[in-house]
Order: sequence, then structure tokens, then C-alpha cells
Amino acid sequence: MFDPVEKLKEFVRFPSVSTDSKYRDGMRGAQEFVTGLLRSLGFAVEVVKTDLHPIILAQRDGPATWPHVIIYGHYDVQPPDPLGLWKTPPFEPTERDGRLWGRGTADNKGPLMAHISAVGRLLEKAPSLPLRITFLIEGEEETGSPSFLPFLQRYQHRLDGDFVFLSDTGIPREDQMVITCGLRGLTLCEVEVTGARMDLHSGLHGGVLRNPIQALSELCASLHTPDGRVNIPGFYDCVLEVEPWEREELRKLGTSEAEYREFLGIPAFHAPPGFTPFEAVRFLPTLEFNGIRGGYQGEGSKTVIPSQASVKISCRLVPDQTPRKIRPLLYAAIRERLPKDVSYRIIDQHDATPYIVVPPGRSNTPKDQPARLAQAFRAIDAAAGEVFGRPPLYLREGGSVPIIADIKRVLGLDSVLLGLFLPEDNLHAPNESFNLQVMQKGSTVSERMLSALAGR
Amino acid sequence: MFDPVEKLKEFVRFPSVSTDSKYRDGMRGAQEFVTGLLRSLGFAVEVVKTDLHPIILAQRDGPATWPHVIIYGHYDVQPPDPLGLWKTPPFEPTERDGRLWGRGTADNKGPLMAHISAVGRLLEKAPSLPLRITFLIEGEEETGSPSFLPFLQRYQHRLDGDFVFLSDTGIPREDQMVITCGLRGLTLCEVEVTGARMDLHSGLHGGVLRNPIQALSELCASLHTPDGRVNIPGFYDCVLEVEPWEREELRKLGTSEAEYREFLGIPAFHAPPGFTPFEAVRFLPTLEFNGIRGGYQGEGSKTVIPSQASVKISCRLVPDQTPRKIRPLLYAAIRERLPKDVSYRIIDQHDATPYIVVPPGRSNTPKDQPARLAQAFRAIDAAAGEVFGRPPLYLREGGSVPIIADIKRVLGLDSVLLGLFLPEDNLHAPNESFNLQVMQKGSTVSERMLSALAGR
Repeated sequence: MFDPVEKLKEFVRFPSVSTDSKYRDGMRGAQEFVTGLLRSLGFAVEVVKTDLHPIILAQRDGPATWPHVIIYGHYDVQPPDPLGLWKTPPFEPTERDGRLWGRGTADNKGPLMAHISAVGRLLEKAPSLPLRITFLIEGEEETGSPSFLPFLQRYQHRLDGDFVFLSDTGIPREDQMVITCGLRGLTLCEVEVTGARMDLHSGLHGGVLRNPIQALSELCASLHTPDGRVNIPGFYDCVLEVEPWEREELRKLGTSEAEYREFLGIPAFHAPPGFTPFEAVRFLPTLEFNGIRGGYQGEGSKTVIPSQASVKISCRLVPDQTPRKIRPLLYAAIRERLPKDVSYRIIDQHDATPYIVVPPGRSNTPKDQPARLAQAFRAIDAAAGEVFGRPPLYLREGGSVPIIADIKRVLGLDSVLLGLFLPEDNLHAPNESFNLQVMQKGSTVSERMLSALAGR
Repeated sequence: MFDPVEKLKEFVRFPSVSTDSKYRDGMRGAQEFVTGLLRSLGFAVEVVKTDLHPIILAQRDGPATWPHVIIYGHYDVQPPDPLGLWKTPPFEPTERDGRLWGRGTADNKGPLMAHISAVGRLLEKAPSLPLRITFLIEGEEETGSPSFLPFLQRYQHRLDGDFVFLSDTGIPREDQMVITCGLRGLTLCEVEVTGARMDLHSGLHGGVLRNPIQALSELCASLHTPDGRVNIPGFYDCVLEVEPWEREELRKLGTSEAEYREFLGIPAFHAPPGFTPFEAVRFLPTLEFNGIRGGYQGEGSKTVIPSQASVKISCRLVPDQTPRKIRPLLYAAIRERLPKDVSYRIIDQHDATPYIVVPPGRSNTPKDQPARLAQAFRAIDAAAGEVFGRPPLYLREGGSVPIIADIKRVLGLDSVLLGLFLPEDNLHAPNESFNLQVMQKGSTVSERMLSALAGR
């Protein structure tokens, strides 16, 4: 068997940034690396072409009576900017303090490697294991998985699994496993406001027209109420009531608000009334500004009235909100609130539907929950309890894994989400890293669950 | 005599951007070019060192009984960004359609060349002209002239002029001269807001803290009233009442609001109530946003909650406002209005005091107006009337020439401001150009005024 940490380093060295075309070579390198690794484990691998970056479909087939688990992961990573803040280069993986540092170590190359190595060990010990396994590893997760839904529709006949298994969610501490039971969705857009047709001298023309930065600021300022809620009519209409067991489970997390506040480095939280910060991030939708720009960006000053300003907006959604319901509400607010003396353009970006699955034995567990899904939950519960030294928690998560809801809709399959990254892993930010002990523990839990599913 | 247009091309080729240290060579080249040119006209030139870019002091001395005119100009230019929007490269001057295109052609290299060539012709015709002339040409105008005030204080004894003469202001059409009788001042700052201590994943943490873009937007949105006035208590307290002759003179401008609106390319003006756009830009102060930035700036999306966001703010001031009165009001508004759950830093940038001078024979002309200043105004009036075919207009201007108020305060001298650039010259913007016929007419007016002052 290969050394998972050394293999992970190889994997991280490919700068596989899917949102930026200048990283095309890194994307191809990462894809070929995964393809080769799965072939070496005996998988039949198909590299499925898409408009952008191919999807890797690797299968270990068997009789239809065998359980069939579909393991999902992605080989693409977030852009590394701002580069200047990295302590070691993002694509030169560095092992230090029991962690591996580099872009993509935690999101999602490390967790994916935990599952690949679990499968590797399992098949080495039991080459004839009665278990069908499909790896589904895409390269467009960080751009919103535009090719994944058409892929699912086209390859539906080969994806007759019992459930999907993946690690693209988090845990609060290295001794506390979390099974994620819900994910927030997402709807994104960019708003570009134009005032005069060119940048203007602020002395010669200042005072006669509305500055597009002012128009954009007025729009942005209107989108929240002072207490931190999103100020768009109808925005909260479909938000699911939180079950008492969910709040109870969350309380067991044991992170204090003071610790969390200190981690973020903020003087005070700003969560909507009636929700702790831990609840707000999981049970409530948001509207965030991911980037704003306009006018002079250099050093010193330039007394200009910019022609344009733009803002990138994203809403995290919770069940039963959907992008289809929320996007029109957001756009209507933008259209109504931008002043009429500027022009504007709304640029659509990607979407994700929120998702919820309820583990066995809860007040709101569906009566028709499939037996193998329930079996997987129970096997994970036992394995995680042993490996991590305490029972896992069942929590909804603030992040989004856009394809989970698509899988549910197209294939009818729920997902078992084994959390593996830690708050200090700095996902989507400079100095991303992954805890190698957590990787090893996660890999063991994965191996035991798959083994149990195969009846061992 | 040299060809002014060819000399101007040489001058424009030096990329003399004073705000950005990467243009250091261009600054030195432009300074040496001007120094050489004035020496060739017989001037005694001193290059006065400053902390940043030297000031050129070039003198033609004579008996103390001779009139003494101080001609001001600057050899530095605005940054050329955004570079992609230039039709021809900013520092490769191109003659086309009777215009010279390039950064600095209109602000201020072309107008300065008009005066240097006027002096050149005058001295060629009358080498013993009884007129003292001092050229004062700085290299820090576009960064707020930080060295100019200390220079004035140190060189006061050599600057015993009758008045200052310069062209760093505009005219509405090529057949209408304007003598600028007032300038707006300026106070600038940058506000940098910090939320969490690093960029955060908007899924994992969205909904618990205030986004710095939101905090900054709320601040920016608070700084104007819906009718377009600046929303800072006390901001308008010292604004001078407009004299009826000023409004009357402005009405003679003859530009229609429709033409102006079309030139700007906006659907509607947004000037405070009670003022036409032409009045607002001259008689009222402003608060403008010159640049805003925060978070992800690249293509596509990045679902991040940025750690920081910042905005560059400038206020244009009118008599009798001063930066000393207005800056504390602005800062107090920023401090009071930014929410307490973010931290912030206000970075001081430069200042300029507004200025007003009243030409002879008006309702508010000071009784003690110096005779040679009045003589200069009358000589310009006559020369401009002949050369441009109609009497000049006497107007306050929306722009700032920060050193004019400093000269008034330190040397006690008023300034005669001969407008030379046109609205379509695109100052401070891409595709700056200068009308070469206006340059020639301005040079003739300059020559006649200087000649009259010398008693010819």
C-alpha cells in the first residue's frame, strides 16, 4: 500500500484551480494523478469529458446484490490569492506540526485521499470483498459544478448506488467526529453599476451626478436590517423550523462563544436575534458581500469619479429555500433599490440547493429510510465512537456541497458526510492546512464502515 | 524660436507620474527637460530639492521697479490607469484631429508650454523687456504639493511678485475664454475597515459577524441625503453665499444641461436642490468616493468573507470652508457611524484650501485690489476678447489648484487663472488630449498680457 501522506503531497503539488484558465496544466496534472492512483487499485476508470474539466468515474463492479457505495470528491481547489499572505507557497506542500500546509490540503485533496487509502487497504486485505464501489471525482466543485448535473443525468444507469459517501465538511476539534446532516445552498451574482460613460475628474464634475460607488453602497447597505437579518421581502418564508434535537446536539459541540470569537478575532458577534452564532451559521440563510471594487485601487489618491463599481453577492440558503425561489427576490430588491440615475447589469453566477438528511432514530427520521443508508449511519456511529473516543455529533453545516442536492434529486440518493477538516484549516483562505492525524482517523472510520457494509 | 507642439511632444514622452515611485525616471526626465528649455531662453534656473520631486525655480531678474510676474505650472501628471482603455499609449504623444493625445497633454504640460513659448517669443522680439519673470514649476501637484508650502516659506524673499499667472483650469468651448476667479479646495482620506483577522469561508462562518464590506457600505450610504447633499452635521456652515453677478456670468456660458448630460452619458443629474448642475459644480462642496475595494477581485466567484475593505474619500470644498474645519467633521461622522463590531483606521491624505479672487469692477471687488493685478485682468480681458472673438467669462471653477491658496496665504499674492483645457480633454482619465488651436490662442493672450504689463 502507498503512503497516504506522501501521495497527498504529490496531489497538492498540482495547482488545480478550476476558476481561472491560467491553471489549466495544474488541472490536467491533478486529474491524471487521481486517474493513475485509482487504476493502480484495480478500478476501471473512465475520464468523462465536460465543457470545462473532466469528471473521473472509477468503478469496482460486482453482482447487483452487493451493496454499492458511491464515494464523491473533487480534485479542484480554490484560487490561492492573496498570495502575499502565505507563509509557505500554496502549491509546495510542507509538513509541519503534524499538519500538511498547502492549497487544497483540506478542501478536498486530503479528505479524498483518506477515502482512497481506506479503499486501498480494504482491498489489499480482502481482494474479493462483496462491495461495489464507485469513485466520482469532479474538477469543477469550486466553480459551482456546472457539468455535474448533466453528467448525473447522462450516467444515471451506472450510478445505481445505495448512498453517497464523502468528506467535504468539518469537525470542531480533532477528537470530535461530526456527521453532517444538512448543508446550506447558495445563490451568487455580481452587480455592476455604471454612472458616467468614463471616469471623471472629481473637481470638474463632482456634485452633479451620482457616483456609482455611492449607488452601490446604498444598495448594499439596504440589504440587511440593523439586527443582522437579510432585508429582502419573503427571504425567510421557506426557512425550516429547527428541531429541538438539532439544537441539543449543537449544544454538545462544547465550543464556547468566547473561543469562537477569539478565533475569528472580532470584538462582537452580529448574528440575528434568537440564534447563537453556532445556530445562525447552520440554521439561517445569509447574504454576504464577497468582493467590491470601483475606481482607483492604487497607492495614494486619484481624485476621480469612477464610471463603474461592482459587488459580488452570495446568499447561503437553508432548507426549504431554493435558488429558484430566492434569486428572483434578490434581483427584485436590486432592481427596485438601485437609483434610476445609474445603469446596472446583474451577472448570474452559480447556484446550489440546500440539503437535509436525518439519521436513524430521530423525531423527524423519515419512515421510509433505506436500510443500507441506516446501516451505514450505524456503522459510522460505532467506528467513529471507537476511533475518536466519543460518539459523533449529527449536525447541519453552514457550508455548501452543491452536488449533494443534485444527487438527491437525480439519483434519489442521500449522502453520508463524514466531517474531516478543522476550523483552523483555513479553507478558501491563505495558509490552508490539514491535520494528518485526523486524516488517519478518518481513513480508519471509512475503512470500517465500508467493511461493515460488505458484511465483514 | 522652438516649435511649441514639437516641444510639447518631447515633454509628454516623459512618464512623469508623481504618485507612484515606479515612474521615478520619468519624473527626472521631465524635470531636466523643462530645466533645459528655460535655460535656453536665458533664465537662471535653480532646481530646488524636496523630499520627493524637485521644484524648478527659473528667474529673469531686473530692477525692483519692474513688474514681476510669477508663472506657475507643474511637470507631473496623473497615473495613466486603467491602461487598457487608452486608444493610443499614454506616453507616446499622437497628433490627430487638431489635438495632441497623451497623459498630461492638457494637465498641465500643454498649458505650461503655451506660457513658456509666449515668453520665448516675447523675449526674442524684445530682449530687454522691462519685466521680471519667475517660472515656478513643481513636480508634486498630483500628489497634493506636499513640498510646495515649505518651499514658499523658504524662498519667500525671491518671490516678491505682483501676482501669479497660470493655466490649470478649463474653458467650455474653444471660442470662449474663461478667467477662473475661484477654486474648490480638497480634503482626502482613506478608510480601512477590518472584520475578522483573516478572510473567512462564507459557508462556515457566514451569518455570525458583520462583513467589512457591509460596514463600509453602511458608512458610505450614510454620507449623503437622498437629495444629493452631504450628510455631515455642520458641513455647509461656512459655504459662501453666491453673488448675483456670478450666477449671471455662469448663465452666459451657454452650455445646455442636455448637452452636458449627454457628454457625461447619464440619464439624469443628481445635484442638490436650488442649484443647476453648472452651479453645483462651482459653488457647492461635495463628498465623493474615488475608489473602493475589498474581498475577491478576480474573475468568477470566491465565497469569502473578506477581512478588510477600504474606501478612498475626497471632499471638494468651497470658500470659506477649510480642510481644518471640514476634516474633523468628516472623521467624527466616520467614527460615530461605523459599527462597533468592526475595527477601522483612517489614513490622512492631502488637503487644499479653496480660493476666491474678484476681478476689477464687480459688486464684491475688494477696495484695496493691487493696481498691477487689476492691470493684468484688464489686459487679459482685452487680449482674450480679440483672440477668442468674445469677452472672457469670470467664473469660479470646480477643480482645485491646491497651491493657489497657499500662495495667497504665504506671499499675499492673488492669481490670474487663464483657462485652457476643454471638457472633452479627459483630464485624470484615459485618452487625455489637448486642443492645439486653443494652445496657440492661449499663448497669444499670454504674450499680449505680459507685453502690456511691461508697458509695451
